[in-house]
Amino acid sequence: MGGAPAWSPSGLVTLTTDFGGRDGYVGAMRGVLLAVAPALRQVDIAHDLPPQDLVHAAAALEAAAPWFPKGTVHLVVVDPGVGTDRAAVVVVAGGHCLVGPDNGVLVPVARRLADHGRVTAFRIASHPWLPPLRSATFHGRDVFAPTAGALAAGLLQPRASGPPHPRLLELPSCLVEWTDEGLVGEVVWADRFGNLVTGLGVAEVHAAGGDSCELVGRSPASPTLIPIRETYADVAPGEPVALVGSSGRLEIAVRDGSAAAQLAVGRGARVRIRGRPGGGHPGR
Amino acid sequence: MGGAPAWSPSGLVTLTTDFGGRDGYVGAMRGVLLAVAPALRQVDIAHDLPPQDLVHAAAALEAAAPWFPKGTVHLVVVDPGVGTDRAAVVVVAGGHCLVGPDNGVLVPVARRLADHGRVTAFRIASHPWLPPLRSATFHGRDVFAPTAGALAAGLLQPRASGPPHPRLLELPSCLVEWTDEGLVGEVVWADRFGNLVTGLGVAEVHAAGGDSCELVGRSPASPTLIPIRETYADVAPGEPVALVGSSGRLEIAVRDGSAAAQLAVGRGARVRIRGRPGGGHPGR
Amino acid sequence: MGGAPAWSPSGLVTLTTDFGGRDGYVGAMRGVLLAVAPALRQVDIAHDLPPQDLVHAAAALEAAAPWFPKGTVHLVVVDPGVGTDRAAVVVVAGGHCLVGPDNGVLVPVARRLADHGRVTAFRIASHPWLPPLRSATFHGRDVFAPTAGALAAGLLQPRASGPPHPRLLELPSCLVEWTDEGLVGEVVWADRFGNLVTGLGVAEVHAAGGDSCELVGRSPASPTLIPIRETYADVAPGEPVALVGSSGRLEIAVRDGSAAAQLAVGRGARVRIRGRPGGGHPGR
Repeated sequence: MGGAPAWSPSGLVTLTTDFGGRDGYVGAMRGVLLAVAPALRQVDIAHDLPPQDLVHAAAALEAAAPWFPKGTVHLVVVDPGVGTDRAAVVVVAGGHCLVGPDNGVLVPVARRLADHGRVTAFRIASHPWLPPLRSATFHGRDVFAPTAGALAAGLLQPRASGPPHPRLLELPSCLVEWTDEGLVGEVVWADRFGNLVTGLGVAEVHAAGGDSCELVGRSPASPTLIPIRETYADVAPGEPVALVGSSGRLEIAVRDGSAAAQLAVGRGARVRIRGRPGGGHPGR
Repeated sequence: MGGAPAWSPSGLVTLTTDFGGRDGYVGAMRGVLLAVAPALRQVDIAHDLPPQDLVHAAAALEAAAPWFPKGTVHLVVVDPGVGTDRAAVVVVAGGHCLVGPDNGVLVPVARRLADHGRVTAFRIASHPWLPPLRSATFHGRDVFAPTAGALAAGLLQPRASGPPHPRLLELPSCLVEWTDEGLVGEVVWADRFGNLVTGLGVAEVHAAGGDSCELVGRSPASPTLIPIRETYADVAPGEPVALVGSSGRLEIAVRDGSAAAQLAVGRGARVRIRGRPGGGHPGR
Repeated sequence: MGGAPAWSPSGLVTLTTDFGGRDGYVGAMRGVLLAVAPALRQVDIAHDLPPQDLVHAAAALEAAAPWFPKGTVHLVVVDPGVGTDRAAVVVVAGGHCLVGPDNGVLVPVARRLADHGRVTAFRIASHPWLPPLRSATFHGRDVFAPTAGALAAGLLQPRASGPPHPRLLELPSCLVEWTDEGLVGEVVWADRFGNLVTGLGVAEVHAAGGDSCELVGRSPASPTLIPIRETYADVAPGEPVALVGSSGRLEIAVRDGSAAAQLAVGRGARVRIRGRPGGGHPGR
C-alpha cells in the first residue's frame, strides 16, 4: 500500500494541445519527443481545441484517451497558466500516464481511466531529462514533452519525476440539479457538428425517466420539447433530437444539421428533463 | 472465379474523416485501432473535410489513396446516415481495403484503385473484433475502426467481416454534357487555395479541343474566356487560368490568388469548353 | 574540403505544408513517401500554415525543425511558384536535410540548423526516384515527396539528387533599425493565440536595454508603453506584456487574451524599444 503506481510503458505518446496547425509549436514538441527516444510512436488526439478552454479539452481527452491501450502516455498542453506557479504534473491512472499542467484539465480523464481505482500524481520538479534552460512561456516543449518522452521510453519512472502531488486542482463542476420540475443540467460543449453535449450522464437521464427535454429560460414561454430517442434517424431531417451520445452523456442534435446554430445555444445553456409521472430523483 | 479477393495487409491504416481537430473523435478511433493491434501504423489523409460532404470527401480520397502501397487499409468516416439502416462495408479494390459507410463516398476511389479490375464489397455484420455494445451515433469508433484495425493487422479477412454486399450506393454523377456550344461540365469542389476542380477529365478536355473555357450562365452576357494552359505561370499574377490539375481534371485557378473568391463561384457552377472549329465530341 | 556533406538518415520525415486538412494533398504526399519506403516514419510540423505565406512558414520551421534529431528529412511544400522555373532543392545543414522549393522558405531554418556551419544545396534535377511524368501544379507529390522519401530511407544521397545549387534565394529581411529614439523592429507573424512575434532577437533586446516597448506610429500621440517582462504572469490578466518568447525573439502578448485582437495589430507593425539612458546600440 502506498507503493509506486504500476507503470509499464508501451512506447506510445498521444498529443493533445490547443496549438492549432498554423505555427511550429506542435512540431517542436514532436522533435523533443523524438530527440529523447527516436523509436517513440506519436499519435494525435486533437490540436485544434479552442484556445485555453480547459473544459472542452478535458471533455475531448475523456472521449479519446480511455480507448488507448495501457502503457500509453498522454501529453496534454492546454496551459493558460504557463509562467505562473501552477504545478507541472505526471498522473498515473489505470495503467496510463498523463503529463501536463495541474489546472484541472487532467482530472476527469484520470478518474475515467482509474475506473474507481487509484489516481497518483507527482510534481515534475527535477529529473535528468529536463533541459537546464527552460523558457517561461512554452513548457509543452521544455517541460512536458521531455518528461512524456522519457516516461514513454521507460527512461523515467513516474515517481522519479518529482515529489508526490497529493491534491490535483479540479475543474469547476458542471450543473446537475434535481428540481421540482425535473432534472436540470447544462451544455458543456458543442462539437464540430453543432451537437450540444451536456453534463448529464446516462444513469441520470434514466433516473429522470422522461422521454423529452427542453431548453430552460428561453422565450417563447412555452418551450419546444425535444424528444429523447436512440439515434438521429428517429426524427425527421432538420428536427432536433436528444440522445445519449457516444460519450455516455445527453446530447442535443439536429438531424442533418447543427443544433448549436439552429437553437442558437452554446456552453452553459440549461437543459431540463421534466420526467414522467412517478419518475424523478432515485433518492427521493 | 468469384473467389475471395486478394488481400495482403501491410499494417498501415489511413484515416479520412470530417471530424476536425477540436473534439476527441479522431483520437478515440486511433485508440481503438491501437487497442486492436498495437503495432499498427496510422497516417492521416484528411480530417477537416467539410462536414457530411460526401462529394468532397470522395474527391479527397481519390486524390490521395491511390498513392499508398498495396496492402493499405483506408478507414473513411463521413457518415451522415449513422444510426439509419445504411450498411457498413469493407471494399477490396486493387489490393487496398476501404472501410466505411455504404453511402457512395467509397465508390470513386474504389474504381480508381481497381483500375478496371474487380471491386468486391462485404457488409460488416458480425465478426469477433466488433464490440458487443455499439453506440448508435459513432460507428467510426465502434464499427469501422475495429474492423479496419483487424483487417490491417491480418486478424480478419475481408470476407469474414460479413456477407457479400453486391451493390454499393453511388454518389450522384456530376454533369458532363456535349452540347452544340461545346463540352459542359461542373465544378465539383473548391480546394483550400480556391482552385475550382471540375468533373471534366483530361481525355474529355482534349476531345473538346478548345484552348479556353468559360463560366456558363453568368452576367455579363459576353463571358470572360479563361485560357487553358499548362501551369499557373502561363498567365500573369491575378489572372484566371484553366489547366488539367494534379487530379487529372480541369481546374480553374487564379495565379497567386483564389479563383473561388475572385470569380465568386463554387460547387455546381457550369464550365463550358467551346472547342475549336472541327473539334468536338469524338463520337460525332 | 568541399566534399560531400555528411548525411546519415534516421528514416524520419517531417512534413510542413500550407495544404490544410480539407483536401487530399497531404495524404497523397504521405502515400508517395510510403510507396518509396514503407518503413519510413512521418510526423507533421504544420499543415494549416497561411496559404503561400513564406515568412510565416519559415518561422514555423525555424521554431520546430531544430528540435528533431540529426538524420531527419524535413519536407517543406509552401510553393507559390510551382510551375515557374524556380528550382527544387535539397539542402543539407547541421546533419538535417531540407527538401522543398528554392523560394527562401528553407533559408532561415537551414542557417539555424547549421549553427554557423556549412549549408550545402543541390538542385533536384534527375534521379531514379522521380516519376517520369510530373504534374506542373503539384511538385509536393511529384518531386519533393519522392526525393524526401529516398533521402530518408538512405536510397539517395543528397549530392545524387542533382548539381550543386550554390546560391539559395533569400526571404526579404525584416526590419531591425537603431534610431535616435531606440531600437525599431517589426512584427513578423501572429500566432494562433494572437501573440505578436517580432524579428528582434534576444541579443538585440538586451543591447537596447529598455524595460518597455511601444507600437510606433499609432494614435493616440502618446503611445502605451508595454512592459518587457519574463513571463505572462508578470502582468495582470488582460494587460499587454512584451517578453522574449520561446523562439528567442521579442513577442508582445496579452495575458489570457489576444494581443493581435486587442491591439489591432498584425504583421509589419513596428515596435520600438526606447532604451534606458545609457543604453542603445552596442556599437556606438
